[in-house]
Amino acid sequence: MLDVRIIGEPLSNIPWQDKPSDCTSPVWRYSANPIINRNPLPGVARIFNSAVLPLNDGFIGVFRGEQRDGIPHIYIGRSQNAINWSFEPEKIPFTNSAGEPFIPRYAYDPRLVRIDDTYYIIWCQDFYGASIGIAETKDFVTFRRLENPFLPYNRNAVLFPRKIGGNYVMLSRPCDNGHTAFGDIFISESKDLEFWGRHRHVMGPSKKWWENLKIGAGPAPIETNIGWLLFYHGVVNTCNGYVYSFGAAILDTDEPSRVLHRCTDYLLAPEEWYEERGFVPNVCFPCAALTDSATGRIAIYYGCADSYVGIAFTTVQEVCDYILKHDSVDISDSEIGLR
Amino acid sequence: MLDVRIIGEPLSNIPWQDKPSDCTSPVWRYSANPIINRNPLPGVARIFNSAVLPLNDGFIGVFRGEQRDGIPHIYIGRSQNAINWSFEPEKIPFTNSAGEPFIPRYAYDPRLVRIDDTYYIIWCQDFYGASIGIAETKDFVTFRRLENPFLPYNRNAVLFPRKIGGNYVMLSRPCDNGHTAFGDIFISESKDLEFWGRHRHVMGPSKKWWENLKIGAGPAPIETNIGWLLFYHGVVNTCNGYVYSFGAAILDTDEPSRVLHRCTDYLLAPEEWYEERGFVPNVCFPCAALTDSATGRIAIYYGCADSYVGIAFTTVQEVCDYILKHDSVDISDSEIGLR
Amino acid sequence: MLDVRIIGEPLSNIPWQDKPSDCTSPVWRYSANPIINRNPLPGVARIFNSAVLPLNDGFIGVFRGEQRDGIPHIYIGRSQNAINWSFEPEKIPFTNSAGEPFIPRYAYDPRLVRIDDTYYIIWCQDFYGASIGIAETKDFVTFRRLENPFLPYNRNAVLFPRKIGGNYVMLSRPCDNGHTAFGDIFISESKDLEFWGRHRHVMGPSKKWWENLKIGAGPAPIETNIGWLLFYHGVVNTCNGYVYSFGAAILDTDEPSRVLHRCTDYLLAPEEWYEERGFVPNVCFPCAALTDSATGRIAIYYGCADSYVGIAFTTVQEVCDYILKHDSVDISDSEIGLR
Amino acid sequence: MLDVRIIGEPLSNIPWQDKPSDCTSPVWRYSANPIINRNPLPGVARIFNSAVLPLNDGFIGVFRGEQRDGIPHIYIGRSQNAINWSFEPEKIPFTNSAGEPFIPRYAYDPRLVRIDDTYYIIWCQDFYGASIGIAETKDFVTFRRLENPFLPYNRNAVLFPRKIGGNYVMLSRPCDNGHTAFGDIFISESKDLEFWGRHRHVMGPSKKWWENLKIGAGPAPIETNIGWLLFYHGVVNTCNGYVYSFGAAILDTDEPSRVLHRCTDYLLAPEEWYEERGFVPNVCFPCAALTDSATGRIAIYYGCADSYVGIAFTTVQEVCDYILKHDSVDISDSEIGLR
Amino acid sequence: MLDVRIIGEPLSNIPWQDKPSDCTSPVWRYSANPIINRNPLPGVARIFNSAVLPLNDGFIGVFRGEQRDGIPHIYIGRSQNAINWSFEPEKIPFTNSAGEPFIPRYAYDPRLVRIDDTYYIIWCQDFYGASIGIAETKDFVTFRRLENPFLPYNRNAVLFPRKIGGNYVMLSRPCDNGHTAFGDIFISESKDLEFWGRHRHVMGPSKKWWENLKIGAGPAPIETNIGWLLFYHGVVNTCNGYVYSFGAAILDTDEPSRVLHRCTDYLLAPEEWYEERGFVPNVCFPCAALTDSATGRIAIYYGCADSYVGIAFTTVQEVCDYILKHDSVDISDSEIGLR
Amino acid sequence: MLDVRIIGEPLSNIPWQDKPSDCTSPVWRYSANPIINRNPLPGVARIFNSAVLPLNDGFIGVFRGEQRDGIPHIYIGRSQNAINWSFEPEKIPFTNSAGEPFIPRYAYDPRLVRIDDTYYIIWCQDFYGASIGIAETKDFVTFRRLENPFLPYNRNAVLFPRKIGGNYVMLSRPCDNGHTAFGDIFISESKDLEFWGRHRHVMGPSKKWWENLKIGAGPAPIETNIGWLLFYHGVVNTCNGYVYSFGAAILDTDEPSRVLHRCTDYLLAPEEWYEERGFVPNVCFPCAALTDSATGRIAIYYGCADSYVGIAFTTVQEVCDYILKHDSVDISDSEIGLR
Repeated sequence: MLDVRIIGEPLSNIPWQDKPSDCTSPVWRYSANPIINRNPLPGVARIFNSAVLPLNDGFIGVFRGEQRDGIPHIYIGRSQNAINWSFEPEKIPFTNSAGEPFIPRYAYDPRLVRIDDTYYIIWCQDFYGASIGIAETKDFVTFRRLENPFLPYNRNAVLFPRKIGGNYVMLSRPCDNGHTAFGDIFISESKDLEFWGRHRHVMGPSKKWWENLKIGAGPAPIETNIGWLLFYHGVVNTCNGYVYSFGAAILDTDEPSRVLHRCTDYLLAPEEWYEERGFVPNVCFPCAALTDSATGRIAIYYGCADSYVGIAFTTVQEVCDYILKHDSVDISDSEIGLR
Repeated sequence: MLDVRIIGEPLSNIPWQDKPSDCTSPVWRYSANPIINRNPLPGVARIFNSAVLPLNDGFIGVFRGEQRDGIPHIYIGRSQNAINWSFEPEKIPFTNSAGEPFIPRYAYDPRLVRIDDTYYIIWCQDFYGASIGIAETKDFVTFRRLENPFLPYNRNAVLFPRKIGGNYVMLSRPCDNGHTAFGDIFISESKDLEFWGRHRHVMGPSKKWWENLKIGAGPAPIETNIGWLLFYHGVVNTCNGYVYSFGAAILDTDEPSRVLHRCTDYLLAPEEWYEERGFVPNVCFPCAALTDSATGRIAIYYGCADSYVGIAFTTVQEVCDYILKHDSVDISDSEIGLR
Repeated sequence: MLDVRIIGEPLSNIPWQDKPSDCTSPVWRYSANPIINRNPLPGVARIFNSAVLPLNDGFIGVFRGEQRDGIPHIYIGRSQNAINWSFEPEKIPFTNSAGEPFIPRYAYDPRLVRIDDTYYIIWCQDFYGASIGIAETKDFVTFRRLENPFLPYNRNAVLFPRKIGGNYVMLSRPCDNGHTAFGDIFISESKDLEFWGRHRHVMGPSKKWWENLKIGAGPAPIETNIGWLLFYHGVVNTCNGYVYSFGAAILDTDEPSRVLHRCTDYLLAPEEWYEERGFVPNVCFPCAALTDSATGRIAIYYGCADSYVGIAFTTVQEVCDYILKHDSVDISDSEIGLR
Repeated sequence: MLDVRIIGEPLSNIPWQDKPSDCTSPVWRYSANPIINRNPLPGVARIFNSAVLPLNDGFIGVFRGEQRDGIPHIYIGRSQNAINWSFEPEKIPFTNSAGEPFIPRYAYDPRLVRIDDTYYIIWCQDFYGASIGIAETKDFVTFRRLENPFLPYNRNAVLFPRKIGGNYVMLSRPCDNGHTAFGDIFISESKDLEFWGRHRHVMGPSKKWWENLKIGAGPAPIETNIGWLLFYHGVVNTCNGYVYSFGAAILDTDEPSRVLHRCTDYLLAPEEWYEERGFVPNVCFPCAALTDSATGRIAIYYGCADSYVGIAFTTVQEVCDYILKHDSVDISDSEIGLR
Repeated sequence: MLDVRIIGEPLSNIPWQDKPSDCTSPVWRYSANPIINRNPLPGVARIFNSAVLPLNDGFIGVFRGEQRDGIPHIYIGRSQNAINWSFEPEKIPFTNSAGEPFIPRYAYDPRLVRIDDTYYIIWCQDFYGASIGIAETKDFVTFRRLENPFLPYNRNAVLFPRKIGGNYVMLSRPCDNGHTAFGDIFISESKDLEFWGRHRHVMGPSKKWWENLKIGAGPAPIETNIGWLLFYHGVVNTCNGYVYSFGAAILDTDEPSRVLHRCTDYLLAPEEWYEERGFVPNVCFPCAALTDSATGRIAIYYGCADSYVGIAFTTVQEVCDYILKHDSVDISDSEIGLR
Repeated sequence: MLDVRIIGEPLSNIPWQDKPSDCTSPVWRYSANPIINRNPLPGVARIFNSAVLPLNDGFIGVFRGEQRDGIPHIYIGRSQNAINWSFEPEKIPFTNSAGEPFIPRYAYDPRLVRIDDTYYIIWCQDFYGASIGIAETKDFVTFRRLENPFLPYNRNAVLFPRKIGGNYVMLSRPCDNGHTAFGDIFISESKDLEFWGRHRHVMGPSKKWWENLKIGAGPAPIETNIGWLLFYHGVVNTCNGYVYSFGAAILDTDEPSRVLHRCTDYLLAPEEWYEERGFVPNVCFPCAALTDSATGRIAIYYGCADSYVGIAFTTVQEVCDYILKHDSVDISDSEIGLR
C-alpha cells in the first residue's frame, strides 16, 4: 500500500470525528449534520454549496446564501471551530479594479482558494448567462473583482492552490444557459489572471451510472505526494430528476490535465434526510475541503439538497487507497486533452 | 408605518396561534400541521388545495379529494374550529341550471367565495382541457353550475368577494393543457356571471427566482383600507422539478388590475417534511384565508405537497408592512394591462 | 343528391376558373398562383394568410404583411378583380374607443367579416401572449378596436357573418404561447361584442392523420341551406415539421356548435412549389372565401408557405357533395360540447 | 361474494401480519418496513425491486443490487423467514449455454419464477438498449442464460408459473431506450423458450390517473379459481416526476391475454418515508409475491424509492373482492388484443 | 479488384440507364424521375416507399399509398416495364388465417420478398403502436396475414430471400412510438414464420454524420459471391429536420449478423427537387431493388420526400468496389451482436 | 446623408453586378447564383459557408466541404475572378506548432482574415464539443494551428483584420453542444493569440423576429470611417425549423464591444430556390466579404441552405445608409457589456 501524504500546512483545529465502526465507506458524515440550518440570516432562506479556509486562529468562509426572493448571493462567515458559523448580514461588497461597487446580479457556488497571501473567490454569476466570476481579497474587507476569466457559459470553476509551471491554473465546466444535461471538466492557464489559454480537457462523464450525465470540480485540488487529489461531483439523470454524488480523481502534479487515477465508485451519495429532501432533493455537492498535513485528515464541506451545509470526513490515506483500489483510468481519460 | 385594516366581518373563532419568538418571517405555520392526513375518507387518498369559509357558528369547506383512482373531485367538509374537519362521503352533486346532475369528469383546486348570501365555488375541471368551472349554492345542499366563464385552458381562478364597479370580477391564470411552464394572472369582468369580458393583465412572473416561472392567484382577495390583499403562489423550475411558494401583492381597490405593491420575497416556501415530501414534493399552495376584521388576524389554508392541508398565520398589519418594505412594483407591473 | 345553395348575395365578379379536366379533387387551384409575390411593398417581405370581401364594385382586403424586421402587421389592400391587389403603404391605424392610436405590437392572420353594414377584422395579436384582437370599421379609414374578446392564449378566431339566436357568434382555437401542439375549435357568444360566454366545443383533431395534431377555423362560415359550410385547416406533425392542409365541415344553422358533417379527407394539401417551399414550408392556410349565391361559386384565399397568397376554387354543390360522401361525423363530433 | 382460492402450494412459513384495525385499504404494509436498508453489502449501495421464492425450508431471492458505481446487477440472497436476508457477495455468475461466463453489462428488476423443477430469472439488461434477459437454474449455483426472448427495447417481463395451452407464456412491456413515457403490457408464447410469437396485447394505461402514463407487470401471476391474479405497477407523471403505485387485474386462466377484471383503484401508493424519499422518490414497485394456498395469504415484495425493499400483505379473498368491487373492465380492455 | 457477381436469376427486362459521364457517384438517378407523381389514384394523394418484384413477364409491386385522409395503406401495382405502373383501386384485402378480412388500421413502407414460390409482404402497421406486419400470397389475389413476428415497437423489417441455416431470417429496426431518434438494425430467425428468436445486433448508427442518428434496412438483401449486399437508409438530424440518405453494407453469407464491409459514404442523398421538396423534405428511402444476375445491374426503388417514387441504378461490381474502397468495418461493427 | 468610406485597400477586380432596377433591398444577389454547385469535388458533396480573400492577382478561399460521409472539413480554393473556383482535392493539412500533422476530427464554417502579412483561418471544430479552432499561414501551403482560443462550446468566431488598442480582437458566439437555441455575440482580446481575456458582451438576439432566437458574426468586420461594419446572421425559430437571414451593425472603431448602430431589418433572407431548398432549408449564412475601398463596393459570400455558395452585392454607402435609417440601438445594446 502506497504511503500518501498531503503536501501543505498542518491544521490542528481541523474539525474531526473518527470513522464509525459500522461504516464501510471511505468517507463518513459528521454526526451532527447539517451544520447550518434553514433561515440562518434575516432575508436568507438557505445556505449551502459553500467554501471555507483557515484564517488566523479560526476559519473564514464564503457562503451561498439564497435570499428570500430566491436569488443567490455570497456571504462571509466566520467560525472558531469550522462548525458553528456566524455570518455577516450583507452580501459581499465586490468592487471593480477602481474600487467602485460592482455587484453581480446573482452569485452562487463559491470556491475559496489561497495562493500565497491572497485569497481568491471563484463563483458562478450572470454574464449574459451563467459564467465564472473571480475576485481577490487579502483582508476579507475589500473584494476586488478581476476580469471574468472565460466566455459564458460556465460553472464550477476552481483555482489550484499554487501556480504550476509558472502559471495560474483553473478547472471549470463549460455548460449551457439552463439545467445543463452535459458537462466535462476542462483546465486552463493564465500568466496574469486576466488572459487565459492553453485549455485542455481533463475528464468527462464516465460510463459509471452515478456520473454518466455530467461532472464538475468541487474543492480546490489537494496536493499530495502522488498528485492532486480532486473531489468532484457526478450526476445521474433518473426519471425523477438529477442525483448529485461525489467521487475523486488524482491528477498529475506537474501536468494536471492528465488523470492518473479515477475512482469508479462514488464516495458519498444522498442517503440522509437532509440530502434527500429539500429545495433540490438528492444533492451532495462538495465545495471545500480543510486538510491537516500532520494527520492526513480531510474535512469536506458539501451542500445538501440545496438547503443545508454538511461535513464529511476522510483521510488522505484512506481515500487514496480507495481510489487506487477502484481505479478506472484508461486511455480515454489519460489522453492529453487537446484536439 | 401605515395602519392597515381588513374591511370585512369579524370572526372571533378564527383559528389562531401567536407567532413563535424565533420566527423571522411575517407568516408562521400552525404547530400541529398538517391538519388533514392521508386517507381521510374511504376511497379518498389525499385532501389538499382546499378552501374554507365561516358558516353559521362553524365553518364550511370545499376540499380537493384525490380518489384512489387518482382522479380528483371536490368534497364538502364541516368543522366547528376550522381545524378538525368531517367530510361528506360523496363528492359534490353538481347540477345544471335545470337541476339535473352535471358532474365534471374531474374537479380540483376549488376556491370558495361568498358574495352577499350566495356562495360560489370556482375550480379547475375538464372542458376538453383544463378550464374553469363555477357553481353557486346557498345551502350547501344543491349546487348549480353556471356557464363555464372562459375558454380553455385555464386554472387558478377566484372571484372577488364583492362586485367592483357594478360587475363581478374574476382572477384567473390562462395555461396550456399540460404541466404549464408559464403563467400570468389576468382579471375579467361580468355583469351576469354568464358573459365575461374587459380582460386585463394583472401581473406575470417576476425576475425574482422564487416566482420566475409562473404565478397564480390563491385565496379570494382580502379587502383592506389600502387595497386588495392578494396571496398568490409563485413557481421556480429547479433541475429536480417545480417549487411552489407563496407571496403577496396589493391591488387597487377600484381598479384591481392595477398592482399597487408586490412583495419581492416569498412569504412561505417549502421547509417542513409535509411540504417537501409527498405526491408532488415542494409545494405550498394557498387556496383560502379566514380573516377577522376585529383583530386583523389571517389564517391561510394551503395545500402541502399535493398530500396535506396546512394552516399558516399572519396579521394584516404584519404582512402588509412586510409587503411594503419589500415592494418591487415598477412600471412593468403597474401598466394598465391591456394590449 | 342534395341540392345545396349558398344563402347570401350574388357576386358576379367573383374570380373564377373552371375545373381542369384532369383534376380529381373537389377543389382546384388558380392556374396563376401565387397571386401576391415576395416583397410586395417597401418594408414588407411577404404577404400571406389574408382575407378579402367585396366592397362597392371591387374588393377590399386585410393582409398579413411580414415586415422586413420579421414582425407581422395588417395592411389594407384594394382590387378590382380580387386577383391584382394594391396595398396601402402603412399598416392599419387601429384606435381605441376614444379614437386614440392603439396599435398592437404585432398582428397576424386576419379574418374579415361583414355583419350588416359593419366590417369586423379579427386577428391574432400580443396580449401578454398570442390572443384575439378585433376591430370594426365602416369606411376602411377608421378602425376602432373593441375589447379583446377572450383571455390569452388564442388564435384563429372568426365571427359568423350574422347573429344567431340574437347573439354574435365567434369561433376560436385556444392555444399556448408557442408553436402549439394541440388545438380544438370552440364557439362563443356575445350580446354586445364586449362580454363573451356560452363557450362550447365544436370539434377537435380527428384520427385522420392530415388533421390529427390540431385544427383551426379558416374563413367566416358560409351559410347554406344545409348548414354553415366551414373551411378549416388541419395539421399533422411529420418528422420534418408541421404540414397544414385544409378540409371542411358543416355546422348546424341554428346551433352551430353541432357538427352535422365533417369530411374525412382534406380538400387541399401542399403540392405546388409555392406551398411546399418558403418561410414555413408545407402550409395551405385558408383565411377567406368569396361566394356567389347565384352560381354557387366559391373562391378560397389561402396563405402558401407563409410566403404567398393563392386562390382555390370550388362550388358549394361540389364541395358539399364531397363532404357528405366522405362524412365522418360520429358521436364524438356531435356531442353538445359542454362539460 | 365469490369464494376465491389460490391454486398452488401451501406455504406455512409465509411472512405475515394481520391487517391493522384502522386500515381501510385491501393491502397493508409490514410494520417493520423497509426490510433491507442502505449499503447492505460491501460495494452495494441499495437493494430494491427484487424477487423471492420458497426454497426447501427457507427462501431464496434474486435481488437488484445497485453497485457503488451506480450500475445494477443481480445478487442471490437467502433467508429463513423471508424477512431477514443474507446475500452472496458477488453478483450472479451467469453463463452461456456452453457454460462460459456471460455476464450482462448491467441487469436489474429481476423476477423469479419456478416452472416444475426449474427456476427462471427474468430481468432487464443491455442488449444494445434495455431488453429482457432470461436464465435458468436448478440449484442456484449455475445459472445458464437462454436466448434473449425479444428484440429491444423491453422491460418488466415475467413468466407465468406454468405452461398454458402447452406453451410457455411471458408478459412484457415494450419501451424505448430512455425513461419511457408510455407502456402497455403484452403477452407472448413459446414452445421452447427460444423462439417467441403469438404476441397479444393485454392492457395499456387506463384513464385512471394513477396509471395513465404506463403500466408494467409485477410478480409472476398468481393462479386462482377465478383466473390469474396479476399485480402490476402504474405510473402517473406529475410536474415533479413519476409516481409509481400498484394495482391488480385478473386474467383469463386459459387465454391470459383476456382481462376479466381490472381494479380502478391502486392497491398501494407511496405514503411512507421509505417510499417517498430516496434515490427515485415516490416509487412502490412490486416484483414478487409469496402465497399460501392454505390460508390465501399473500406477501408482496416491492421496491421502495429505488432504495429499499418492503413487504405488503393481503389475502386472495380480500384483494379479489376489492378488484371485483372496483372493476373497470370494458371493451377496450377485453378485446382480443391482436391487430 | 474483386470480381463480384449476383447470385440469383437473370432479369433481362430490368429497367436501365447507363451512368452519365459526369457522374462521380457509384449510384445514379433515372433521368425521368419521379416515376410516380401526385394523386396517382382517386382517393390516394401520394405513392412512395414501395417495393417491386418481377412477376411472369412483367412486374408486380406493393405500394404505400397515402390516402387523402392522411392514412397510409398498401396497394397492388402492375407494370410491363417496371417504370409505368397501373394500380388496383382498392387497398390490399388482407385476411387472417381463416380467410376472414383482417385489415390493419394503417400500413406503410412495405417490402416484398419471394421465397421459393411464395411472396411475402412485410410492412409497418398499428399493433398498439408501430409494429411489423407480414402476409403471404402466391397469386396476388388472396393475402393471408401471418402472426405479427415481433412485439412493438418496430419498423423497417425485411426478410432475406431464402432461408439461412434452415431458418427464415428477418432484419428489423426496433423503435419507439413516435418520430424515433435512435435505431439499430437487428436480425432474428424463425423456423416457421410464427415464433421468432436468436435475435442478434447487426449494426447501429455510425460516427459518420450522414447516418449518425438511426439506420434501417431497405430492400431485401441481395445475395452475391462476397456476401449479402444490403442497401439501408441512414438519418442525420439537422437543425431543420431529419435527412434520409442511403448507403450499403455487406453481410456474411451464412452468418448475416456479421458485417463484413460497411461503406463510410452514402450512395445517394437528397439533391433533386423531388427529394428535397414534398410532404417530408429531404428523404431518399430505398425499399426495393431489381437485379439482373446476367449483367450485375441493379435498379433501386426509393421513396422521395414521402411524395414520389424514384429509381436509381448501379451494378453489383461498381457498388461493391465502392463499398470496399470506403470500408469502415471495425470491431464495433463485426462483434457477434449478442449481449 | 453621411459620407461613408471603407478604410482598406482597393480591389479593382472585385466581383460586381449593378443593382437591378426593381430591387428595393440594399443588398442584391448575383444573378448567376449559386456559384458553386453540388458535388464540386470527388468525395465532397456540398461546399458552402466559406470565406475568401484577395491573394496576389487573384483570390484564395477556405471552403467548408461536406464529405460524402457527412463530415465537414476545410478545403483550399483558388480563383481568378472570385466566382469560378478550383479546389485542392485534399483537406487542409493542419499541423501543430512542431509541424506535425494535427487534423481536427471535423472543421466547418471557416472565416479567413489577414493581419499584416499573415492569414488566419478561424473555424468550428471538435474539442470535446463544438469549439473554435484557429490556424495561421503565410503561404497557404503550411497551416500551423494555434492554441484553441476558448473553452467549449463556441461557434462563429472571427478576428478583426487589425489589432485594436494593441491587442488582437475576436468575436465569437458561445453555444451548447447541439442545435443551440440561444446565442449572443461576445468579444475577447489577446496580446499573443494564445491567452485570451477581457471578454465583453457585444449584442444578443433582438425583439425583431428575424433575429429573436440567436445571432452570430459573419465576415471579418469591415473598417469604415464611421466604425466597424459587421454583417451577422440572425435566426428565427418557426414551427418548421430555423430560418437564417443576415443583417448588419456598426461597432465603435476603438471600443468595438460598443454597438453604435444596428439595423432593425434583415438585409437578405431566404427567397430563392437555392436558399430555401437543400440540406438545411432556409439558410443565408454570410462568412466573407470582399471590399473595394476605391468604389465602396462589397461582395458578400454566403452559404445557401447548407448546400451552395452565393454572392450578394452592396456598397458601403448604401448599406450604411440603410442601417442608419433603420437603427434600433438602444441602451440594452450599447451597454458596456461586462457584468
